[in-house]
Amino acid sequence: MHRYRSHTCGALRASDIGSQARLSGWCHRIRDHGGVLFIDLRDHYGVVQCVVDPDSPVFSLMEQVRSEWVVRVDGKVRARPEGTVNPELPTGEVELYVTDAEVLGAASELPLPVFGDQEYPEEIRLKYRFLDLRREKLHANIMKRGRIITSMRNRMQDQGFFEFQTPILTASSPEGARDFLVPSRIHPGKFYALPQAPQQYKQLIMMSGFDRYFQIAPCFRDEDPRADRLPGEFYQLDLEMSFVEQEDIFAAVEPVITGVFEEFADGKPVTQNWPRIPYAEALRKYGTDKPDLRNPLIMQNVSEHFRGSNFKVFARMLESAGNEVWAIPGPGGGSRSFCDRMNSWAQGEGQPGLGYIMWGAAEGEGATGVVGRGPIANNIGPERVEAIRQALGLKEGDAAFFVAGDPQKFYKFAGMARTKVGEDLKLVDHDRYELAWIVDFPFYEWNEDEKKVDFSHNPFSMPQGGLEALNSQDPLTINAFQYDIACNGYEIASGGIRNHRPEAMVKAFELAGYDEATVVERFGGMYRAFQYGAPPHGGMAAGVDRIVMLLCGVNNLREISLFPMNQRAEDLLMGSPAEVGPKQLRELHIRLNLPEA
Amino acid sequence: MHRYRSHTCGALRASDIGSQARLSGWCHRIRDHGGVLFIDLRDHYGVVQCVVDPDSPVFSLMEQVRSEWVVRVDGKVRARPEGTVNPELPTGEVELYVTDAEVLGAASELPLPVFGDQEYPEEIRLKYRFLDLRREKLHANIMKRGRIITSMRNRMQDQGFFEFQTPILTASSPEGARDFLVPSRIHPGKFYALPQAPQQYKQLIMMSGFDRYFQIAPCFRDEDPRADRLPGEFYQLDLEMSFVEQEDIFAAVEPVITGVFEEFADGKPVTQNWPRIPYAEALRKYGTDKPDLRNPLIMQNVSEHFRGSNFKVFARMLESAGNEVWAIPGPGGGSRSFCDRMNSWAQGEGQPGLGYIMWGAAEGEGATGVVGRGPIANNIGPERVEAIRQALGLKEGDAAFFVAGDPQKFYKFAGMARTKVGEDLKLVDHDRYELAWIVDFPFYEWNEDEKKVDFSHNPFSMPQGGLEALNSQDPLTINAFQYDIACNGYEIASGGIRNHRPEAMVKAFELAGYDEATVVERFGGMYRAFQYGAPPHGGMAAGVDRIVMLLCGVNNLREISLFPMNQRAEDLLMGSPAEVGPKQLRELHIRLNLPEA
Repeated sequence: MHRYRSHTCGALRASDIGSQARLSGWCHRIRDHGGVLFIDLRDHYGVVQCVVDPDSPVFSLMEQVRSEWVVRVDGKVRARPEGTVNPELPTGEVELYVTDAEVLGAASELPLPVFGDQEYPEEIRLKYRFLDLRREKLHANIMKRGRIITSMRNRMQDQGFFEFQTPILTASSPEGARDFLVPSRIHPGKFYALPQAPQQYKQLIMMSGFDRYFQIAPCFRDEDPRADRLPGEFYQLDLEMSFVEQEDIFAAVEPVITGVFEEFADGKPVTQNWPRIPYAEALRKYGTDKPDLRNPLIMQNVSEHFRGSNFKVFARMLESAGNEVWAIPGPGGGSRSFCDRMNSWAQGEGQPGLGYIMWGAAEGEGATGVVGRGPIANNIGPERVEAIRQALGLKEGDAAFFVAGDPQKFYKFAGMARTKVGEDLKLVDHDRYELAWIVDFPFYEWNEDEKKVDFSHNPFSMPQGGLEALNSQDPLTINAFQYDIACNGYEIASGGIRNHRPEAMVKAFELAGYDEATVVERFGGMYRAFQYGAPPHGGMAAGVDRIVMLLCGVNNLREISLFPMNQRAEDLLMGSPAEVGPKQLRELHIRLNLPEA
Repeated sequence: MHRYRSHTCGALRASDIGSQARLSGWCHRIRDHGGVLFIDLRDHYGVVQCVVDPDSPVFSLMEQVRSEWVVRVDGKVRARPEGTVNPELPTGEVELYVTDAEVLGAASELPLPVFGDQEYPEEIRLKYRFLDLRREKLHANIMKRGRIITSMRNRMQDQGFFEFQTPILTASSPEGARDFLVPSRIHPGKFYALPQAPQQYKQLIMMSGFDRYFQIAPCFRDEDPRADRLPGEFYQLDLEMSFVEQEDIFAAVEPVITGVFEEFADGKPVTQNWPRIPYAEALRKYGTDKPDLRNPLIMQNVSEHFRGSNFKVFARMLESAGNEVWAIPGPGGGSRSFCDRMNSWAQGEGQPGLGYIMWGAAEGEGATGVVGRGPIANNIGPERVEAIRQALGLKEGDAAFFVAGDPQKFYKFAGMARTKVGEDLKLVDHDRYELAWIVDFPFYEWNEDEKKVDFSHNPFSMPQGGLEALNSQDPLTINAFQYDIACNGYEIASGGIRNHRPEAMVKAFELAGYDEATVVERFGGMYRAFQYGAPPHGGMAAGVDRIVMLLCGVNNLREISLFPMNQRAEDLLMGSPAEVGPKQLRELHIRLNLPEA
């Protein structure tokens, strides 16, 4: 018989009754019923009940065993007594009658129980991650994460993509977020950088004549902690294709992502034909470029209904060019209490308040129809109120909320208000995955601090209209072949068709204030590659962790990550970062430069 | 029609004759035959001949095209004229008669040709890696690398292993090679380290209740360059299993590795039942713990035949305890010229020479049988010579070579001599893969510099005999449950059953001179985990790059790596490592400490 087990703890069934079995695992739960010990023995594969009665030769040994001890037990598989069968458990019809046992690994008193669902402080959970990971939910999340990644990989391969490993010790890239640096021992004063993404390498792979690249790529950003971001490192499903246009990327990616979501959505509906929403439209309708389309609310520009009206605050605003009034419909929100709550919420968000109209039944003798109420309605009069109602498709019992000013400044707040209205009115169907392409991102944006044009996202994207547009158009009106995937309010992927023409690349950087020498200095390898036969290419990178988080139904990335750092970018289990010895520092040609105490 | 291609360059066949096609690719080779241009157009998938004749509307455009320009061509697929069919090429029956074309990406004059096999200096190849990677052989190696990794992954999954991603920003580990360090911005004066291997994490995964871990894991070692090692980073097929003994690891791993080798060996034979060779036996027979078993030569201890003989050099050596004389058989090497060459080679390796005996036909009237010749034979006399011949199983025309002294000091040289004899006598069948387990590695070794006992390999391995052996045996006689895989003279994997008992771990470190406080300080996370129910576990890590190198039949790791660094640990393509700005250094709380000029 095997030294440790003939079966795993999840394997025994009624058909094994009568046979001998050897099991090894953790003592999940131990109960003493009138001198008989019932031990739920657990391993990765399942749980099975073991019974040690006082006649057993190992009874006194097993009496000492505590939660999370690792034991090996031998015994006979028998049917559970009538009435004690557990239909919830695959092994629930049987139990092991223990005749021999051995302690393989004892456990001290637990700082964190494994059995049960009790919440524990995150610092304890991270320090004792090896216990936390034994807990049912986290254990299952980590396994699901692995299966999702395997599914992504297989689906990419089925689409003709090929996996490559790009370097992790690479060059610091001056664009984007902050790099992690690695001092070189062999080259004093020089540093490697960990890649924020394999962006340049994957483009170089295309220029090296490979056709369809992908990678489950570790990426590194030295950014300050944020709720929806793991400190330090994260994974992207990174891909790139040659000889393609935007449509080809969409055609390749959509089935992969839809397929992965459907496979792991536990039956929740997943968007089959993804809408394509231009960036500008997304801001107008949803107040964000990562809309939660489970929320049915669509905002509208209702400026015309306020222009020249008696609601002077808005009317005066609209006299300045560029200002607008947007409406957020609130179906079913037409009560004083709800509108007041929204108004208070807006004030809590630092806004002066949130204007609204409530529609109710006309009151008074002989009155019929729907009437708008509230300060705005009183000021702009019934005709404008009715026009707004019709534009928004609202009815009795509904409300609308209004945000006014410069849309560039208020759209984010408007989007938050839309989310708040949708959630509070229970209009959002949480049990579905709504996916969409967001397209036509602006190539440049105005940097108000430095009073200059800047790249809004990826400087390597192809501007729509190419070199000609760069030469002739106002830069701020140029869109890029650049796109995101939004899902349930998260950006889960981002990509673009690349600018593969060296002269267009130089011009694009020039418009953002970088001369050719700077381009050569900063992106030398890629600039060089462009000179020697670059194919048209494009691609995308999807956030693996975020997709896993969505599919596990949790909202903290540490719930789907094996050994995450805490929010202070510390690994409490391994004790990193840590101090290092003077010899190591000397070898790396650096010394510490600590802040004054 | 698609913007860039209706077919890839490898797709057209005789069945496409008569149809229109659009292709995009690189101009691989351009020939001008009497005014007609023949362009071999290449992409990732293949090569196809395109014909542009002077009547073509794009003739003058295509006349300007040079090697490695990227073009799109439209035209009609037609049969190649009789006598010009190329049976070597999948597209060899057809050609594209070009009627339209577009330059997608021009190329400057090439620093490195893509067409042809000419050798180029490595520095040029690395700087222009995107050109080098387009070359047939390297392109094929990289693709083969990817297929090998996919095969490993699938085979591991089929064996019930599950892939996990372990952290890359982790804690410096004081054992083993030098770490790459990453200064922390948030924690002044502290550093992360890149993992030399996920050793501690994979053990923690087992202690977290997962059962069978694997990972194609990036590993990092800041070591000085070596021929068979990539500077900086490399990949391991890393695995770990719970509730196992050494036999279980062997049973899980052997089919995976054998399967991968068979799949990619291009028909070369691969060992089916791997021999298991104890470490001590490997040294005795082959002079190395990574023997090349394609070499049939087996060394023997022939001390008894020299003890007390008239060959005084050896006889005197053997008077000191521990000294031995080893023989390397040389079948077919029994000529003066070969033996002299071996002797010269040994002197070139810093040895005083290499003693030998040559066997030839007895000479002189009426003489029969085989006679040993040479200085050693003359000194020890025919009886001893004959005894040696019989022990080694040699015959007329053969030779034997002798190495004497302390085997601990000479075994490596003896192993080199065995390799040299085998290779020079063409006894090594290069067209096969010989795999073997090397087992029973010593747990400790004597550190002559520090006059103390040290771990010889992995301090986390389980000593054979467990705690009892540690308590009672001479440490230098204790073997570990530790094993390697050797293939064709390379160590391609290494592993062990782990010491999962905290008291045995503490004792093991104590014997190597580390007290418990030191263990806690250095391996805190793992030491803690051992206290809370650790299962018996063990595993292995195989060198992915080395396996790929063997299967690609090359002997330089840069030939199977996408964007490798050079031997000075520089990425010549991306220009790393590089200097960074003072702001970045300040943020990381370090300053430079450069060597004096």
